[in-house]
Amino acid sequence: IAEMKRVPYHIQRDVLDELGVDQVAEKSDFKISAKEKLRDAVRCTGPRFKSCFLSFVPLLAWLPRYPFRENAIGDLISGISVGIMHLPQGMAYALLAAVPPVFGLYSSFYPILIYFIFGTSKHISVGTYAVMSVMIGSVTERLAPDSDFVIPGNDTNSTTLDIVSRDAERVKIAATVTFLSGIFQLLLGLVRFGFVVTYLSEPLVRAYTTAAAIHVIVSQLKYSFGINPQRYSGPLSLIYTVIEVCALLGQTNIGTLVVSIVTIIGLVAAKELSALAARKIPIPIPVELITIIIATVVSWQMDLKTEYGVEVVGEIPSGLQAPVAPAVSLLGSMVGDAFALAVVGYGIAISLGRIFALKYAYKVDSNQELIALGLSNSIGGLFNCFAISCSMSRTMVQVSTGGKSQVAGAISAVVILVILLKIGELFEELPKAVLAAIIYVNLQGMMKQFGDICSLWRTNKVDMVVWVMTLILTVLFNPDMGLAASIAFSILTVVFRTQLPKYSILGQVPGTDIYKPVEDYNQVKEIHGIMIFRSSATLYFANAEMYIDALYEKTGVDVAKLLSHKKKLEAKRLRKEKKAAKKAKKEAKKRDVAAVEAGPDPDTDTPLPRAIILDLSPVNFLDTVGVKTLRNIYKDYGEAGVQVYLCGCQRGVVESMEKGDFFNEKVTKSILFSSVHDAVLYCQQGNSKEVMQGTHL
Amino acid sequence: IAEMKRVPYHIQRDVLDELGVDQVAEKSDFKISAKEKLRDAVRCTGPRFKSCFLSFVPLLAWLPRYPFRENAIGDLISGISVGIMHLPQGMAYALLAAVPPVFGLYSSFYPILIYFIFGTSKHISVGTYAVMSVMIGSVTERLAPDSDFVIPGNDTNSTTLDIVSRDAERVKIAATVTFLSGIFQLLLGLVRFGFVVTYLSEPLVRAYTTAAAIHVIVSQLKYSFGINPQRYSGPLSLIYTVIEVCALLGQTNIGTLVVSIVTIIGLVAAKELSALAARKIPIPIPVELITIIIATVVSWQMDLKTEYGVEVVGEIPSGLQAPVAPAVSLLGSMVGDAFALAVVGYGIAISLGRIFALKYAYKVDSNQELIALGLSNSIGGLFNCFAISCSMSRTMVQVSTGGKSQVAGAISAVVILVILLKIGELFEELPKAVLAAIIYVNLQGMMKQFGDICSLWRTNKVDMVVWVMTLILTVLFNPDMGLAASIAFSILTVVFRTQLPKYSILGQVPGTDIYKPVEDYNQVKEIHGIMIFRSSATLYFANAEMYIDALYEKTGVDVAKLLSHKKKLEAKRLRKEKKAAKKAKKEAKKRDVAAVEAGPDPDTDTPLPRAIILDLSPVNFLDTVGVKTLRNIYKDYGEAGVQVYLCGCQRGVVESMEKGDFFNEKVTKSILFSSVHDAVLYCQQGNSKEVMQGTHL
Repeated sequence: IAEMKRVPYHIQRDVLDELGVDQVAEKSDFKISAKEKLRDAVRCTGPRFKSCFLSFVPLLAWLPRYPFRENAIGDLISGISVGIMHLPQGMAYALLAAVPPVFGLYSSFYPILIYFIFGTSKHISVGTYAVMSVMIGSVTERLAPDSDFVIPGNDTNSTTLDIVSRDAERVKIAATVTFLSGIFQLLLGLVRFGFVVTYLSEPLVRAYTTAAAIHVIVSQLKYSFGINPQRYSGPLSLIYTVIEVCALLGQTNIGTLVVSIVTIIGLVAAKELSALAARKIPIPIPVELITIIIATVVSWQMDLKTEYGVEVVGEIPSGLQAPVAPAVSLLGSMVGDAFALAVVGYGIAISLGRIFALKYAYKVDSNQELIALGLSNSIGGLFNCFAISCSMSRTMVQVSTGGKSQVAGAISAVVILVILLKIGELFEELPKAVLAAIIYVNLQGMMKQFGDICSLWRTNKVDMVVWVMTLILTVLFNPDMGLAASIAFSILTVVFRTQLPKYSILGQVPGTDIYKPVEDYNQVKEIHGIMIFRSSATLYFANAEMYIDALYEKTGVDVAKLLSHKKKLEAKRLRKEKKAAKKAKKEAKKRDVAAVEAGPDPDTDTPLPRAIILDLSPVNFLDTVGVKTLRNIYKDYGEAGVQVYLCGCQRGVVESMEKGDFFNEKVTKSILFSSVHDAVLYCQQGNSKEVMQGTHL
Repeated sequence: IAEMKRVPYHIQRDVLDELGVDQVAEKSDFKISAKEKLRDAVRCTGPRFKSCFLSFVPLLAWLPRYPFRENAIGDLISGISVGIMHLPQGMAYALLAAVPPVFGLYSSFYPILIYFIFGTSKHISVGTYAVMSVMIGSVTERLAPDSDFVIPGNDTNSTTLDIVSRDAERVKIAATVTFLSGIFQLLLGLVRFGFVVTYLSEPLVRAYTTAAAIHVIVSQLKYSFGINPQRYSGPLSLIYTVIEVCALLGQTNIGTLVVSIVTIIGLVAAKELSALAARKIPIPIPVELITIIIATVVSWQMDLKTEYGVEVVGEIPSGLQAPVAPAVSLLGSMVGDAFALAVVGYGIAISLGRIFALKYAYKVDSNQELIALGLSNSIGGLFNCFAISCSMSRTMVQVSTGGKSQVAGAISAVVILVILLKIGELFEELPKAVLAAIIYVNLQGMMKQFGDICSLWRTNKVDMVVWVMTLILTVLFNPDMGLAASIAFSILTVVFRTQLPKYSILGQVPGTDIYKPVEDYNQVKEIHGIMIFRSSATLYFANAEMYIDALYEKTGVDVAKLLSHKKKLEAKRLRKEKKAAKKAKKEAKKRDVAAVEAGPDPDTDTPLPRAIILDLSPVNFLDTVGVKTLRNIYKDYGEAGVQVYLCGCQRGVVESMEKGDFFNEKVTKSILFSSVHDAVLYCQQGNSKEVMQGTHL
């Protein structure tokens, strides 16, 4: 106990307890056993053996060590469950991408096999993803609009579409943009650019996916109502489309609408039941598969297509297609879209991958993920796939059904292969409205993200603004431009956050070496004659001027007026000196007396700081404007006779000052102090010396 | 002296002296007399009387108190000198704006009178400015290109331009964009948005003006060579124009080229002579005025226009014109340009105004300046003026010839009025090449700013990158888009600067309460069992992941592996428990023993931190990602048995943590400490307690 009192620590603690901020409490969860667990764990981090090739093809590293007995059954069940989900989702998302449904199945096959070889996440289910699909759809419909494929009929009023060549063109476009986005991902991965994803902060990603879901829903309304609105592209196209859809509601196909409503109600009810049943049955009920089977049977039996004019999926060719080269001529017109696809696809996959990596304690290599996704998309693009990422809903199923490794993904690809080769053509009578309904119901989770606004309002208003702005920008400017604008905005918030800092005068917590803002605490005391000033943010070009203004205001010194007064005083003195000079020859001594008289002004009793201490500990970096600002502050106050000291500077800040020629013969590093307390002690010391000198002289 | 030793300060100082960073030296410039000067000065800052109206019309405040005897002569001489400069500059810059020269004279008259009434800077010379003029020129030539005013001749090869209606249209465009930019400035001023200028950091402004000067020079080449290149607009137009000019060099008009070369050589020589003579003559020689007078006389005598085909200024109407309403139909197509004009004009004027305000000790009100410039431009726009700002060269002359207040500006306006009414038409024979030469020579200063690259390379590399990027962006994307791109880039640098922070482990400076990075200083010692971690930058979304990675790496703990090992341990324990459970009925006690055995692992002797202290003093703010990161760190290490403490949090940071639900029953504010030393002492105390408990048990 005596040992513990060797420092003035208790005093400090007691004071702070009173202040109510930094309380000291006994930790109950700090047990010896816990520390030992840590020691156990560290044993595992031995020297790392990293073969470049093994890290490039992770399959070779993990497959030979695949714990067959432990994982095989789980992976099998999980793979089949996910494969079954791929079928309806792939077909539905193909609608979003504006390509025939079978290409959604291709996209659920090739890329997944490639990710199986190169991917590092064991749990995410890569494949078709609503947000990516709607982004692809905006490219395909922009570059191959319906209007390009009109076959003029004999009657001038009736026109028909050359749907076959339109779809062929759209598939080519989708495959090409997918190929390009894969190349982008590959390049980003090879130059180790995985960190770009850090710009996709959580509020941004959640708002972005919500906005994308709105785009998805709007794009599917035509299938649900059986109408044919005009295609819009560019900013505000979502608004125009909604208006157009509303205007066309009168032409709704009743049969299609009935199918939509029945399917949505059925799906929602079945999902609720399935959620209730989940506790009893280990494998989730394939609600969507059942839905499309029932819908296909009903559609076929009732002949919905011809009897009620309900649009159906149409021809689904069996088997696989040979690879085709991407359409090089189109590349130029889709660079922006491809880049957005690359970033979004990677962003979604890596954030989901990280969540499960953390949960199941393994590592996801962000650059390798970029390479894996890049290869999946670029090779997939050659096989007419559209861009993939990873789907939250499938991933949840994959994990909950016992999937333990990438093998589950490979098995799901095999399931899709079987469907492609044998079963696919059975679904030709499936109404498109059913697929649209499946999409809506799958987007429930994203819509629930609107609740973020409330929780962010409570926790962090700036992040809420980022959320709302991302939503608005993405809804208005479409997913590609919207993403860029949202990232730019979220980066801007860093500036907003540091541009209006809180400026405080610090005072001493009595009896300690701790200094706190005087406005925050009652008990802290300003030190007589010393002004300690701190900004809550870095000092840089966007707030340098405010820093000076706040400093002058808080210290109660208007340097401009101060200097002007000084000038007047000097002018006065000069005049007196001139007068004196005239009489100088006679009364040589008189001049000195006059000059001395002009010096101290009797009626200035305003308490003034003798020294100013700038606490720079929150400063992260100094730009040239920051260095210049500090130099000006030092100079201005120096001219007015107030010494300025800097404390808490980080190494990099001092280096910036050195390089920026802040220091010279007059201004030495002696004005730097490690802590506020050091600077205060130095000032007080200087003062006591001066007082001593004063009394001795 | 005894008094001075009451603190352990000397020890600290001595150590730091050894470390060679924070040296203590005696201050020689800290004198008593200096302090008294300050006391004198503070007398001036009495309670402020601020009539709203007087602050809106500063003229009413300062004119009644105008010190006639002191200032009048200086202002008169200065006003006449500046007025004489306005004539050639106004005419030359009108060429830049692609309007007839007389409108440059109008722009040197109306706006200056209005600024005289509303402006707060006493020294800047508002009026035509090269950068603004070239920006106007890009608008006028884009909206009224030559091709719109072609009169097809009888011969299909020869076409003539309808110059009169083209110029009328261009004047209308220039006046309208000027009016709109004035309205923008007015609005920005009324909503107190003067702070926008803080985004225009010094490197940015200097690079921007240099790039604008390049645009100016390129736009004037056609007059110097007497050629007619095609007009380009949009990005890269500068490059295209240079290529076109090079291609047309064969068609150079020799007469024009000779005039250009002679004028440039003459001007440069005269300026050098004038600079040499400046020491002897108080008033600067009006070199430019003399140049245009000589040039006009020569051109008239030699009939350069008809004899040599040299393009001359042409008709200069006498007198003033009645105001006209702006062309409302054009407003939509020039919003971006007008906004850029508003920001640039204000940015240049306020930065120059501030320099002189600081030098001559008075205050420039940034919002009132916006209002003054806004009124100057909007009213000027009605009188067919083009947008004005303030010129460095004229301002220097105004100050050096003894100008002491806005009265000098008013007098210069009167000089221009006299020229407009009486003398203007005399200059009709002036070759345009001479005006172009005057522009080149005036841009010397801006070209010298290229030296910034070297000095910034030495002082601050990031600011150098901002400089170079601003130059490149502005040269490539033209002044309007370039400004926006440059500002965006300079804001991005804040992110770059904080995105790659320096992560350090702190150690104690022996015998003190000061903690410094161990890699920076040899003598600091890490504290056994306690890891003190600091990032040099704010923790936010763009670097949160790196923060965790760096922390894990520096502390030598891979939490992922740690958790996986923990899981394995638990699985082992579970298996043992199961086994034990089987035998449980018989040997109930055996299970406990097994569990205890699984606990501490004997061969883990790796030194591990017992506690981790995160020094958050450089953190300016916390976003939700930051809070989540801290929560994860606390949780992960907590699960591994390492206690995490936070210290140096600012008030705002603690508030963000509170709102972000960082604290709960388990995680209390007791983990917060004011300083690193407090946290260290607390840890050591806790440790000694534990040891004591250990020995006692």
